[in-house]
Amino acid sequence: MIELAKKTKKASLRLRSIDHDTRKSILFRLADELEKRWEEVIDENKKDMQAAEENNLNAALKDRLLLTEDRVKAMAQGVREIASQPEVVGSTYQEFKNEQGLTIKRQRVPLGVILMIFESRPNVVIDCAALAIKSSNAIILKGGKEAKFSNKILGEIVQNSLKPDLPVECVQTLASDKREEVQALLDLEHYIDVVIPRGGERLIEHVYNNAKMPVIAHFKGLCHMYIDKDANLEKAINLVVNAKTQRTGVCNAIETLLVHQDVVDSFASQVASALQEKGTELRADKNFIQASGASIKEATSEDWATEYLENILSIKTVASLEEAIEHINEYGSFHTECIVSESVEAQNKFMANVDASCITINASTRFNDGGQLGLGAELGISTTKLHAYGPMGAEQMTTSRYIVVGKGQIRE
Amino acid sequence: MIELAKKTKKASLRLRSIDHDTRKSILFRLADELEKRWEEVIDENKKDMQAAEENNLNAALKDRLLLTEDRVKAMAQGVREIASQPEVVGSTYQEFKNEQGLTIKRQRVPLGVILMIFESRPNVVIDCAALAIKSSNAIILKGGKEAKFSNKILGEIVQNSLKPDLPVECVQTLASDKREEVQALLDLEHYIDVVIPRGGERLIEHVYNNAKMPVIAHFKGLCHMYIDKDANLEKAINLVVNAKTQRTGVCNAIETLLVHQDVVDSFASQVASALQEKGTELRADKNFIQASGASIKEATSEDWATEYLENILSIKTVASLEEAIEHINEYGSFHTECIVSESVEAQNKFMANVDASCITINASTRFNDGGQLGLGAELGISTTKLHAYGPMGAEQMTTSRYIVVGKGQIRE
Repeated sequence: MIELAKKTKKASLRLRSIDHDTRKSILFRLADELEKRWEEVIDENKKDMQAAEENNLNAALKDRLLLTEDRVKAMAQGVREIASQPEVVGSTYQEFKNEQGLTIKRQRVPLGVILMIFESRPNVVIDCAALAIKSSNAIILKGGKEAKFSNKILGEIVQNSLKPDLPVECVQTLASDKREEVQALLDLEHYIDVVIPRGGERLIEHVYNNAKMPVIAHFKGLCHMYIDKDANLEKAINLVVNAKTQRTGVCNAIETLLVHQDVVDSFASQVASALQEKGTELRADKNFIQASGASIKEATSEDWATEYLENILSIKTVASLEEAIEHINEYGSFHTECIVSESVEAQNKFMANVDASCITINASTRFNDGGQLGLGAELGISTTKLHAYGPMGAEQMTTSRYIVVGKGQIRE
Repeated sequence: MIELAKKTKKASLRLRSIDHDTRKSILFRLADELEKRWEEVIDENKKDMQAAEENNLNAALKDRLLLTEDRVKAMAQGVREIASQPEVVGSTYQEFKNEQGLTIKRQRVPLGVILMIFESRPNVVIDCAALAIKSSNAIILKGGKEAKFSNKILGEIVQNSLKPDLPVECVQTLASDKREEVQALLDLEHYIDVVIPRGGERLIEHVYNNAKMPVIAHFKGLCHMYIDKDANLEKAINLVVNAKTQRTGVCNAIETLLVHQDVVDSFASQVASALQEKGTELRADKNFIQASGASIKEATSEDWATEYLENILSIKTVASLEEAIEHINEYGSFHTECIVSESVEAQNKFMANVDASCITINASTRFNDGGQLGLGAELGISTTKLHAYGPMGAEQMTTSRYIVVGKGQIRE
């Protein structure tokens, strides 16, 4: 592992010094290569799918693993989009001349070597490799063994596209699932600048507690939607149903609905029946249950702290905006928080007092996503506030340094 | 400790919601209060100075501890400068409307609660409290016991200035030196968002290895100056002497000089005698010693890896720019790296291949400092690349979040 990390570090120095046009042409080569070799990719993917069958993976996991002609071609298209976006490293900004005549400017530079540990879909290999090449970072992609054949062929295709401009070690894929090997990588802070885990809470906790280098992570998405007394209730019903049911099991779906007591009587039965039509299991406080007139299970305090990742929603009546904010500050996960209100005053108070990577106002929480927010692909959504907060694109794989240009000036 | 951290977190929520004008007036109050109470501050400082005498602290440490009327008034002036700088939180940027008519924008927001652990001068209390208030962050300032009386009175003055707009818990000073108490704070990742250690390498390593929350740290400053074959040698001598001797014992002084072999003959004796006049102890390779004709100790490989923090300089002759870059990439500490050359091609190659928080071109490494680079005060200089790289001012105490404003849009 140390040899691999050293080689990657060395390759990253080459990558940092090549120009944007070369990186762009590598990405276009990668897109072409993916389209040309889509059948080969699918053949390898079939081996993973077969193993998934034998290991009785559930339908959702199998769907995430599956590659089709369309999905491979969509990956290629994504790579082209990343290639076409503006350059994120190299450019300078905030330039000024100081009293001594020094030119001082800041420059976006790559982080160096990124270690990505992921459990999810094979497209992560392509998305993250492309974002890394775009931002001049070398990357080590450690995927799960359930996708080992798919990840391997995709890694080979990326490496082929790097030639002859760059050493193939700029992008490494690993399929090993040995704990010791992962731990060995987490110890190598001199060669790996940052680790980004993406997957279940246990994986993330493990990486966070054991990595010697900084970690950027998404812990969980316990998102709320607050229906204010000044909400447009028609919009509100639509938003609740979308944020909970458009796709369940995702981090930016809501887990708890907070309803102002002034509107609970007119709102409860409508929203309850709209949700129950979508098969949502509701767990609410007594006030809401009574107001809804529906058959709803009573919520326990445990519900407020639970990220269901399923079609379940907890509902609480609050006496005021302040109580909603307090609830969110106690149970929120710094992911996405929504207020539905026509009152600008209430919107502003919510924004000023709620800490989350994305605040949505009269808009579904499902919009907190790199694609939706204009980043193209994303490496994940960070709920750790340092360095990146929210969706991470190529920009979040960079840092800034100072350049000081003089004519021999010394400090007096 | 947990109670203290909880109270600070709670106070940080109040701080995050008050406007810039109020924070500004708090800072001006603080500056006035400092000036008014300078004699009281000095009286408390005398107790620390007396203890320093009894404990035989060396002259450099005593000088760092000492407060005078001028120094207290300079602190007050610094606070006024921070107050007058533009607002760093709240403002939005990168605003755009997406296809669905959503307004998407980014906003600078505070981190929350910052824990600062420091060993150095009492002015850190005022500088860091002022930067924290400016950026709407609550801060816990854990200073060393050698400055406990000074830190205590300065902390009181800050807390007095917070009233009546903010809870005093927004800025807490601690003087305890109990390991367990520091460790207890490092465990509280739910209440403390980031820890910034500032002091000796051992303190920093300890915090880095034991904190559960992210750490922004300055590890060391092993800075190089490279004299290219196309250097203006007159400038070069000035720059070397300034970067080594203007102030020794600081992180942005150089520790190693790299000299291109083509200029070593004309450069060595001049630079050696200029440095020796300043009392610098030299340790050089054989080539340089021979070229200088001076009496110089031979450097060992250990010298290349040593941050002397004293008036000592190691010197190495290199065959090429590439060899200089390789040496820096092996021994550099990501702090400040300088090239002295009139060749734009060489400058660009150096910039493209060297990774440091600040690259200086024909300018002294001593310029890598928040004050010099336009930040006003600084919390320190980060050599960890994530989040902040180089001098940290108020901006580096913030992160960015997304605000999505809609009219009821849902995700299809």
